[in-house]
Amino acid sequence: MKVLVINSGSSSLKYQLYDMTDESVLAKGLVERIGMDSSILNHKPTGKEEVTEVSEILEHNTAIRKVLDMLTDPEHGVLESVGEIQAVGHRVVHGGEAFKGSVLVTGEVKSEIRRLFDLAPLHNPPAIMGITAAERNMPGVPQVVAFDTAFHQTMDEKVYLYPIPKVLYKKHHVRRYGAHGTSHEYVSKAAAEYLDRPIEDLKIITCHIGNGASLTAVKGGKSVDTSMGLTPLEGLMMGTRSGDLDPAIVTFVMNKEELSLSEVNSMLNKHSGLLAISGSSSDMRDITDGWEAGEPNETLAFEMYEYRLRKYIGSYAAAMNGVDVIVFTAGVGENSAIVREKVCQNLTYLGVELDKELNKIRSGDPRRISTPNSKVEVLVIPTNEELVIARDTHRIVQEEK
Amino acid sequence: MKVLVINSGSSSLKYQLYDMTDESVLAKGLVERIGMDSSILNHKPTGKEEVTEVSEILEHNTAIRKVLDMLTDPEHGVLESVGEIQAVGHRVVHGGEAFKGSVLVTGEVKSEIRRLFDLAPLHNPPAIMGITAAERNMPGVPQVVAFDTAFHQTMDEKVYLYPIPKVLYKKHHVRRYGAHGTSHEYVSKAAAEYLDRPIEDLKIITCHIGNGASLTAVKGGKSVDTSMGLTPLEGLMMGTRSGDLDPAIVTFVMNKEELSLSEVNSMLNKHSGLLAISGSSSDMRDITDGWEAGEPNETLAFEMYEYRLRKYIGSYAAAMNGVDVIVFTAGVGENSAIVREKVCQNLTYLGVELDKELNKIRSGDPRRISTPNSKVEVLVIPTNEELVIARDTHRIVQEEK
Repeated sequence: MKVLVINSGSSSLKYQLYDMTDESVLAKGLVERIGMDSSILNHKPTGKEEVTEVSEILEHNTAIRKVLDMLTDPEHGVLESVGEIQAVGHRVVHGGEAFKGSVLVTGEVKSEIRRLFDLAPLHNPPAIMGITAAERNMPGVPQVVAFDTAFHQTMDEKVYLYPIPKVLYKKHHVRRYGAHGTSHEYVSKAAAEYLDRPIEDLKIITCHIGNGASLTAVKGGKSVDTSMGLTPLEGLMMGTRSGDLDPAIVTFVMNKEELSLSEVNSMLNKHSGLLAISGSSSDMRDITDGWEAGEPNETLAFEMYEYRLRKYIGSYAAAMNGVDVIVFTAGVGENSAIVREKVCQNLTYLGVELDKELNKIRSGDPRRISTPNSKVEVLVIPTNEELVIARDTHRIVQEEK
Repeated sequence: MKVLVINSGSSSLKYQLYDMTDESVLAKGLVERIGMDSSILNHKPTGKEEVTEVSEILEHNTAIRKVLDMLTDPEHGVLESVGEIQAVGHRVVHGGEAFKGSVLVTGEVKSEIRRLFDLAPLHNPPAIMGITAAERNMPGVPQVVAFDTAFHQTMDEKVYLYPIPKVLYKKHHVRRYGAHGTSHEYVSKAAAEYLDRPIEDLKIITCHIGNGASLTAVKGGKSVDTSMGLTPLEGLMMGTRSGDLDPAIVTFVMNKEELSLSEVNSMLNKHSGLLAISGSSSDMRDITDGWEAGEPNETLAFEMYEYRLRKYIGSYAAAMNGVDVIVFTAGVGENSAIVREKVCQNLTYLGVELDKELNKIRSGDPRRISTPNSKVEVLVIPTNEELVIARDTHRIVQEEK
């Protein structure tokens, strides 16, 4: 079965075409600047040359059509005809409490995703645009949606509720939902496989740290806690997001600086985190360079980031009464040996023992970076959210047949 | 030296008179409902009968005069004359970054406390009223101020700064200050003394959990992190305060419910925490009763409270790369055996081993509740903030002589 995976943002559309017989990627690409007259389609067919096309793409319907044209292009394509695509899988950020796993798209499913616009105003509307565009361009092809929140639906009530008036949960659905669920699920399963141990027996802390970042406590294969909350603002210090704060700071700053709701949100989501403290960059590579060069602002940003990440690992060890495996993944987690080293350096009380040489090796494969004596296995596992979506799509469409 | 310790709130004034030759309490009491026509003075002279007097006390000046009258009353008093009071110690909530310890009151000190009104609008103004009233009623008697924040001034920049634009720190002094410093300092020192070990060698987590609650990581006798932040809202779930939240919830709820800044602050400070989840009470004794009776709301409130407290202990263990001693203090910490038991039950990964029988014993003395095999010493140490203030006052006034 050939499965097209789509990740549809407000002005972008990422795609990846899988052949599920061997889970190989036939092609992948990205449409950017949707809605502008110089939209860019970057297409990477496996084994062929990369190609970039600039044209006017005003909405997602056209974007999908251009992608399908490219996939079947005689020169750059990898398919004879669009008909070879037997299923489409979509990434949807917010599945609320309704979706505890991936599902086949129906009218009711789309209505529910629309009902959740309120909780994910920036993310769910473009997902619906992507689904509708795919339906139009590939009529009759089954579509599946995978939710960033679904993996975290196993959290206990005591974990997902906030200690605020309950009416806010009942009326406005204010609770912890988390995010990056597809990634946390993938790397926790991959960790158990790598270690050749049943996931049911393991307490795993998965650190998905990229530009956005979240931690999950995975016990027996299930998410029992995660650091992102109602929104992706809570939790770790990120590239441009603050993460955890005294909630009173929000109103204190609104009052002092006479900020509106959207201004303070923008401040905390776009102008905080590494960027605010370094004053120079939200990118951990730049921060690390500055730290190595002894720049005080970058050093402070690096230290705050590491300290807050380490404390979260500690709190999830307490949440599960122990930890067997710590997994690093995503941009920073997979590539920053120094972040991993500094975090693990102060986790020796848990029995963590890092192999500094193994930690420095760069590789795209899952790998152990702890010593044989370490009481906690520390792994680096490259994440692959698209593959999870492709697998879910394949499985669900097979089951429906 | 006889020292009068004063804790002055907006409509109340607590006092305690110490004889510092043996640190004995000669009398203590409380003036309530200041500003109303039926103010209440409750006075407890040591070794004599308690007495309650109702009268009109419109401001702090009169309150102090009434207290001094009572302390020198032929029947209920413990002093021949007011002149026996050789020093006064005041509790002040917020010392900002200026005060790293207790100091003698001067004009400059009072100005600085006034400059901090902004950061503690409910607490610092009545402290100034108390100081001024004491100065008027006891002219020439040296006065000392002890700050709730002072102990935490040893925190590192990476700990006290928030990952938000730095201008907010420079312009509005937005940073972590913490609270309950006098208590955290007292119980951490008392823990080291109880264990007969040098505090310099110890990693201690002090849990001051009462109606307000905060945790402190004390390393080598110094506060290295604490859970309250810019304000006492951050950190643990409390009686009526939410503690940590996704900061985006503040603006989300303001928008949905059309709340003003003061309304959302009031919601998070006065209508959240145990009260919001139980729907019945902010008092841990009631919550525990409900939990024991199998009431679902109280059970949920209890579980959330325990879980959030446990996670903080875990995060501070990571902050210090280990923990040697956990101290429970204040109302809940000293009296709730079940909270201590449930928290410790899931900290066995740290080597915590609670002696359940020792834990159940009620006592006003410092005591160990862990087993001899426990890798972490778990102690209950009744706090005594007034004694710390009296000691500081005594020491500073002696040094000045």
